[in-house]
Amino acid sequence: MKTFNEITQLISTEIDQINWSKEPRGLYEPIGYVLSMGGKRIRPALTLMACNMFSDNVHQALNSALGLEIFHNFTLLHDDIMDRADVRRGQPTVHKKWDDNTAILSGDVMQIASYQFIAQTPTEQLKRTLDLFSITAAEICEGQQYDVEFESRDRVEADEYLEMIRLKTAVLLGAALQIGAWIGGAGEEDAQLLYDYGINIGLAFQLKDDLLDVYGNEATFGKKIGGDILCNKKTYMLIHALELANGNDADELQKWIRTSDEKLSNQKIQAVTSLFNKLGVKRLCEEKMQHFYAKAVANLEKVSILENNKQELRKLGEKLMFRND
Amino acid sequence: MKTFNEITQLISTEIDQINWSKEPRGLYEPIGYVLSMGGKRIRPALTLMACNMFSDNVHQALNSALGLEIFHNFTLLHDDIMDRADVRRGQPTVHKKWDDNTAILSGDVMQIASYQFIAQTPTEQLKRTLDLFSITAAEICEGQQYDVEFESRDRVEADEYLEMIRLKTAVLLGAALQIGAWIGGAGEEDAQLLYDYGINIGLAFQLKDDLLDVYGNEATFGKKIGGDILCNKKTYMLIHALELANGNDADELQKWIRTSDEKLSNQKIQAVTSLFNKLGVKRLCEEKMQHFYAKAVANLEKVSILENNKQELRKLGEKLMFRND
Repeated sequence: MKTFNEITQLISTEIDQINWSKEPRGLYEPIGYVLSMGGKRIRPALTLMACNMFSDNVHQALNSALGLEIFHNFTLLHDDIMDRADVRRGQPTVHKKWDDNTAILSGDVMQIASYQFIAQTPTEQLKRTLDLFSITAAEICEGQQYDVEFESRDRVEADEYLEMIRLKTAVLLGAALQIGAWIGGAGEEDAQLLYDYGINIGLAFQLKDDLLDVYGNEATFGKKIGGDILCNKKTYMLIHALELANGNDADELQKWIRTSDEKLSNQKIQAVTSLFNKLGVKRLCEEKMQHFYAKAVANLEKVSILENNKQELRKLGEKLMFRND
Repeated sequence: MKTFNEITQLISTEIDQINWSKEPRGLYEPIGYVLSMGGKRIRPALTLMACNMFSDNVHQALNSALGLEIFHNFTLLHDDIMDRADVRRGQPTVHKKWDDNTAILSGDVMQIASYQFIAQTPTEQLKRTLDLFSITAAEICEGQQYDVEFESRDRVEADEYLEMIRLKTAVLLGAALQIGAWIGGAGEEDAQLLYDYGINIGLAFQLKDDLLDVYGNEATFGKKIGGDILCNKKTYMLIHALELANGNDADELQKWIRTSDEKLSNQKIQAVTSLFNKLGVKRLCEEKMQHFYAKAVANLEKVSILENNKQELRKLGEKLMFRND
């Protein structure tokens, strides 16, 4: 079994070897830029790890894994245009460094490139990999659409939020695992269990992200703490806070939601965080995260392979759950 | 053999039957809107016609044909954002009717949908269809990139212009024909000849479009005549006019290129058109168009099937060349 570090090392080497120094430079250079920014490479790692659970030959899943990573980075590129985000991983985003048109068109060709890598999936697994990849890709767009729509809606239900993050984040983790499992030769039941593991770990992962956005350590988190609070993002915590707050608490929460004065940013973050603590929504979010994490652990439990072959994936799950950044 | 009209009728019926009334509405509704706007449906028609040249069963190529048409409409959607075009086929464009973010994201999911249809290509032809489709899709993006870059360049060579329109327009016609031929059971040589036919007819088609933009009949052309002249688009004619103009003609051409005053629009169109006539670049463009058309006819000549089975494609080629709108 390869360790997670060995696997991400392999992926990084392969990603660095893709040639983006093609003409027209203005089209391909931004793709190289985006992919060189790094990131955790979790999705392709999941594909290779799932493959490795059933086969010693992880190289056969490499192209499919790279396709998923390129697709993921494509979604970040286009999402950053839509969200008018200027910085990603500490560097200027493509539409900022170049312009909107470049970001649109380079993104489009990146999506095509992701399909070119997926098309190199071993023949016997090609059709179903392609179908799952397309369904997943469309679901991610649906998730992004809901995310945008929720911004301008007055009320969002907790279940709607969970469905949005399932689409926007979890399905790609599930697909990454299922595709890797298929290529490794897993049976239908094991492949489905790994898909489900991906969904549950993905939901837990996003709830953890929401918690870190409020309670994380700014030095290591990589983003400004309190960003979600400042833009009134209807996260699992804010949705429940709006439901649970009564009397003065409700008035205070509404007052801060209406406050967009940048000079009051720190006060807003502190006040809303205090309300989250008081209303117990931090605990609610942690419990929901634990709930999905436990389901993921149970899914992995049921996969019909030796305990030893599950170790790396279990360790990665723990790492994602107990991270502080 | 099915006639061109029977084939476009079949395609229209199939396109109308695709269900875009899915949730989230905000994501899928614009796709139904774009596809309901119509258009000539030339690309999917080419796929079915090429298939029909080798097989009576055109239905086996239907999904691949629809994939190509959806991809073509996706490129129009994203190009219209980049070109800030407000109207397409007499109706408001998606980014105008909705907004930029909607046009970006609906376009993304449209590209995925095009791959979902391509993935339904008959199994034996799937891999090479998928590969040709992706290469072609990337080339179209490259063509769009060159088109955008040429706008801000002082000088563009005629050969660069031809390469740009090959990428932006011709390769999709070539791919549409080759994919249809493969599915119909054509041999490698015939399929390649039809690809080449598509390239040559595509180049001739675009030069015809450039001619109609200057010399067409406004009532039937569907766009304002002189649009390319007003925005100084470096077409085959303007590129040659810039090369050939001397003395007063050169000064006058430069003066009009620097003129962007809307009140002088009609005068600019008239003056530049007169210069095109005087410098003989209208004739140069017609000759180049004829050159590619003749090559296309020769390609079709060499395809090793009965003369009778080439009739519909030959008639379509003539129709595209001798149209006035």
